[in-house]
Amino acid sequence: MTRSHGTLAHRLIADHLVDGRMEPACEIGLRIDQTLTQDATGTLVMQELDALGLDRVRTEVSVQYVDHNLLQADERNAEDHAFLRSACRRFGLWYSKPGNGVSHPTHMQRFGVPGRSLAGSDSHTCAAGSLGMLALGTGGLEVALAMAGRPLYVTMPEIWGIRLTGRLPEWVSAKDVVLEMLRRHGVKGAVNRILEYHGPGLAHLSAMDRHVIANMGAELGATTSVFPADTAVRDFLRAEEREADFRELAAEPDAVYDLTDEIDLATLEPLIARPTSPGNVVPVREVAGEPVGQAVIGSSANPGLRDFAVAAAVVAGRQTDPAVSFDINPTSREILADLTKSGSTFELIAAGARIHQTGCLGCIGMGQAPAPGRNSLRTFPRNFPGRSGTEQDAVWLCSPETAAVSALTGEITDPRDWAAEEGVRYPRLRLAEHATVNRAMLEPPLPPGQAARVELERGPNISVLPDLDPMPDALEGPVLLKCGDNVSTDEISPAGAKALPYRSNIPKLAEFTFTRIDPDYPRHAAELAGDGGSGGHFVVGGENYGQGSSREHAAITPRHLGLRAVVAKSYARIHWQNLTNFGILPLEFDDPDDHHRIDAGDRLRLDGLHAALAPGAEPFLRLRNTTKDEIYQVRHRLSDGRRRTVLAGGTIAALAGEEQHHLTDR
Amino acid sequence: MTRSHGTLAHRLIADHLVDGRMEPACEIGLRIDQTLTQDATGTLVMQELDALGLDRVRTEVSVQYVDHNLLQADERNAEDHAFLRSACRRFGLWYSKPGNGVSHPTHMQRFGVPGRSLAGSDSHTCAAGSLGMLALGTGGLEVALAMAGRPLYVTMPEIWGIRLTGRLPEWVSAKDVVLEMLRRHGVKGAVNRILEYHGPGLAHLSAMDRHVIANMGAELGATTSVFPADTAVRDFLRAEEREADFRELAAEPDAVYDLTDEIDLATLEPLIARPTSPGNVVPVREVAGEPVGQAVIGSSANPGLRDFAVAAAVVAGRQTDPAVSFDINPTSREILADLTKSGSTFELIAAGARIHQTGCLGCIGMGQAPAPGRNSLRTFPRNFPGRSGTEQDAVWLCSPETAAVSALTGEITDPRDWAAEEGVRYPRLRLAEHATVNRAMLEPPLPPGQAARVELERGPNISVLPDLDPMPDALEGPVLLKCGDNVSTDEISPAGAKALPYRSNIPKLAEFTFTRIDPDYPRHAAELAGDGGSGGHFVVGGENYGQGSSREHAAITPRHLGLRAVVAKSYARIHWQNLTNFGILPLEFDDPDDHHRIDAGDRLRLDGLHAALAPGAEPFLRLRNTTKDEIYQVRHRLSDGRRRTVLAGGTIAALAGEEQHHLTDR
Repeated sequence: MTRSHGTLAHRLIADHLVDGRMEPACEIGLRIDQTLTQDATGTLVMQELDALGLDRVRTEVSVQYVDHNLLQADERNAEDHAFLRSACRRFGLWYSKPGNGVSHPTHMQRFGVPGRSLAGSDSHTCAAGSLGMLALGTGGLEVALAMAGRPLYVTMPEIWGIRLTGRLPEWVSAKDVVLEMLRRHGVKGAVNRILEYHGPGLAHLSAMDRHVIANMGAELGATTSVFPADTAVRDFLRAEEREADFRELAAEPDAVYDLTDEIDLATLEPLIARPTSPGNVVPVREVAGEPVGQAVIGSSANPGLRDFAVAAAVVAGRQTDPAVSFDINPTSREILADLTKSGSTFELIAAGARIHQTGCLGCIGMGQAPAPGRNSLRTFPRNFPGRSGTEQDAVWLCSPETAAVSALTGEITDPRDWAAEEGVRYPRLRLAEHATVNRAMLEPPLPPGQAARVELERGPNISVLPDLDPMPDALEGPVLLKCGDNVSTDEISPAGAKALPYRSNIPKLAEFTFTRIDPDYPRHAAELAGDGGSGGHFVVGGENYGQGSSREHAAITPRHLGLRAVVAKSYARIHWQNLTNFGILPLEFDDPDDHHRIDAGDRLRLDGLHAALAPGAEPFLRLRNTTKDEIYQVRHRLSDGRRRTVLAGGTIAALAGEEQHHLTDR
Repeated sequence: MTRSHGTLAHRLIADHLVDGRMEPACEIGLRIDQTLTQDATGTLVMQELDALGLDRVRTEVSVQYVDHNLLQADERNAEDHAFLRSACRRFGLWYSKPGNGVSHPTHMQRFGVPGRSLAGSDSHTCAAGSLGMLALGTGGLEVALAMAGRPLYVTMPEIWGIRLTGRLPEWVSAKDVVLEMLRRHGVKGAVNRILEYHGPGLAHLSAMDRHVIANMGAELGATTSVFPADTAVRDFLRAEEREADFRELAAEPDAVYDLTDEIDLATLEPLIARPTSPGNVVPVREVAGEPVGQAVIGSSANPGLRDFAVAAAVVAGRQTDPAVSFDINPTSREILADLTKSGSTFELIAAGARIHQTGCLGCIGMGQAPAPGRNSLRTFPRNFPGRSGTEQDAVWLCSPETAAVSALTGEITDPRDWAAEEGVRYPRLRLAEHATVNRAMLEPPLPPGQAARVELERGPNISVLPDLDPMPDALEGPVLLKCGDNVSTDEISPAGAKALPYRSNIPKLAEFTFTRIDPDYPRHAAELAGDGGSGGHFVVGGENYGQGSSREHAAITPRHLGLRAVVAKSYARIHWQNLTNFGILPLEFDDPDDHHRIDAGDRLRLDGLHAALAPGAEPFLRLRNTTKDEIYQVRHRLSDGRRRTVLAGGTIAALAGEEQHHLTDR
């Protein structure tokens, strides 16, 4: 195997390395310069800061965004907003008000700096790789620890060089590039890898185009994506009145990658991901003619001014089909202001668009859920089943060009075919060179003296974190759930407008755990806990268990219900970390075929856990199926540090065992 | 008592009278030219058309708007939209797509015609009185019958002439005029009255200003409000490219009113309704300094271009307070287009506004619920407790000027004081003389041949109407609920984002009945129904029982749960009709003091109902309290026709008893 070197990813990692060796599969600790949190994960992070006893964040910049829970169907969302603002004032964070924008594009516009590291409690934090940042989505507690000045631990990934050549044809845009990656490599293709884009094809991709590609690296399972900081990044920062933050960064000319791939942009065509996985990518032409009930432009996966402007230019002077709901999801206040100034907003309204408030809209089911069975075309990053808020949904992922043209025709349409038929030329956009910069909805951190006097505003819906008990020496219990491959955190802890208002209320949110897969899971788990026994139980998973969103609620809520160990074929990176952070043991089958041998309801048993998880012990355990009287060999991938964490019952308990004055030391 | 004559209201009524005499308190039947329905009430209306066996509407114009349930937090709203569109295509209605606008301003812009009658299943239908229409909000079934060509029956109201003189001072606008009416007369002040505005003060009030005043006539309890069709109306229709629809209309010079009042507009000051009733009006100065958490501009109670434009001019170049959520609720697509073209949208965004999709937003709790206990200033029509979606809400009603200025200062502020302090002049607005007329989101009715072939698209959430049994000769049962004065239909059948998705699903919606007052009411009613007895029960109300929204769900859902009779001191007009339409007997105490003698839980009994409700029988009944062994004299106000309806179990059952070929005859 080639050992990679000289890559930009190596440089960024080396610049932030505080622990471990940069060898694939080793755990490394990274110094974190910036953090971002959003409201759907942030309310828990702020409670974790409180539980950790933190006085003030140690990072260069930490920003709390309010972008997910904006519907305010009852008082709970607004309560969360007030709590988050008070926590920002208390702990020294920036507060980005509701209406200011989605974390990813807004952070890129206002705070992103080439060469800096960023940890965010949102799986699409990786989008900031578009600026040459080392940007890592992770669980909320990891972000809380980063704010406390502790390193972020990740597995050293392989570096995958993706060389881009050529230039995108008309009617094909950045979304099609990342859909091509998904078409080639699928939703697990980049697990434990950093995607590093390079090559002459970059010359024609703006920083926001790169954001589109870096953002959906999450859908490939990548640790993150990295782009060089070049002229395009300088142009972007200049437009944002932050050219002083620019610093040129690129791989060394003789860089060697662990893996390589190449995309000739000129050969790409409009692509689309069929329901219900971002990996189900086909050319738009193959599915042309399918009726469309909804088309949505926006989200962090297509947040740029040009993404909306091109849609506006397509529909300008035309009318969307009567059967189509054409929804516009502006992603930052600045972008909406620029669209409005340029006339694009007017063109969209005139064509029949519903303009929604700036934020994440229905990306995780917070509104604009489609009618059952009706095709919804979205420029969003994910289309997992039910994530839209509709049980029997049919969500397709595509470019703004494809979505806008299909909104006009009422059926899935390759924009090139429509353009040829209608005699329409590909829009030549004239975008403003300078953005409407407006910082007024970003409240800066309070000075330390003032901050210390701020009280957290805990409304009745803000629960405190549950206490978690240490791992016993033996675990015994039934398999309450057995699932297949690629179970997402959306299925473990659903989002949607019903569950999201309880993101700061663990006992209440726990009632939604796994209900997408088994509506009775919470009840069965509660009955077991009420039995007087340990109440513990197991879940058995397939490959890529816990893919998708970074929400640590997908670990805390099943833990709250008594889940103590998962046995799976493999794990998605962030969820694996979250499991360990909340004292759930993530085990892997040594022989994946053993997955077939266990049924839901079987009772499993693990003995001698304390010895097996001792520092330096071999990472293998014997899992007994007492129902079938079988034994399977399983393994864990816990570092010595994480073994201590799992034994203690989770990170907060483990840290409480350390001396308090060490807590915030680097 | 003076007998009024020569009023515009008389002329409009006389032009549409098909039954009864125009004497106060007589029931009159009116020919209905136009109808409007909105989605929160319309799904039931469309099911009623189906239950009535209607082939095609008989009105000149019937329009179904989708403006309330736009959040789409799950699939139910979108299912409703699909059902409504199919019903429009089936029965020959116009369909106004989600995103096209709130029914009231949109109807005024596109369909309102001076001199025509309009029945709408929304209590603010009266807003069209601004154009010199006879516009009546009523229960959905009444609207369904109007579509079927049947007269609309109402009690002949008194005509109340409100003479306007003078001109509004700076920083005072139309909302303050209707707030002054509410300050003087309260929420019952205009029950069984038509408010007819006249006088020289009208010269400075545009048609949309009059809409503001006519709209909130509903909050005074008025049957409707009427304005003359004069130059202002002509200007409005010209701007909407409909000058041909104009026709001059005014009261005769020697008109005599049953009651009179006069407002010198020049003497008005900024007013505000305190929580939790539109009748709690005080000068803004009296409450200045109260902290503000939210300010919302829009809704059918301030829908006009100028209402948003003046707010934009106030905040232009400034920033809203960090603690305030500044929410903009565009009311029609056309108005949003005009605001965007003129630059107002940009100014609002730049000042920190959250721009929401065109529709009713959180007027009945569909989003933007405030945090508990934090003051929310809204230009909305109502602030009943909890209607915002927040249990412990504190909603204030005021003008756009007051709301916008308070959003800047973060506290309730008289705009005149702010202007004086900041040296700001009252904005001189230059509004476009021609609106951006765009009909593309209004789907015209299908031709009859095509319409007959359309199938209704009933999703799984669309229930059929429950069958209601005839009134027995004796009613006996407990008082499940006893309430005080002014109970609103919001309290009887709550709206809000949780309940609204079930507006087309009666059994499910019934689970929310009266829960704002008594969370156990649905369970107690269900237990009673399960007892094997008649399952019937009583509700005892105070004055103005059933005020507010026109939703007939407030009659159907308690009826579904076994409510057979209400005994109250007095009723709001629309709810009284709805009760009879669904076979609930609305009784009034002959001696209002008897209200005190009945307690919740007492068992009541009525005997000999069939004789008592026979045509021509005296309208008095003896109500026995078998728990206390007391007898109260009660009365009803049912015409002979309505007696038949109540005896049959409701209107649909009564009509089924008539021959089918009479159904749609005039």
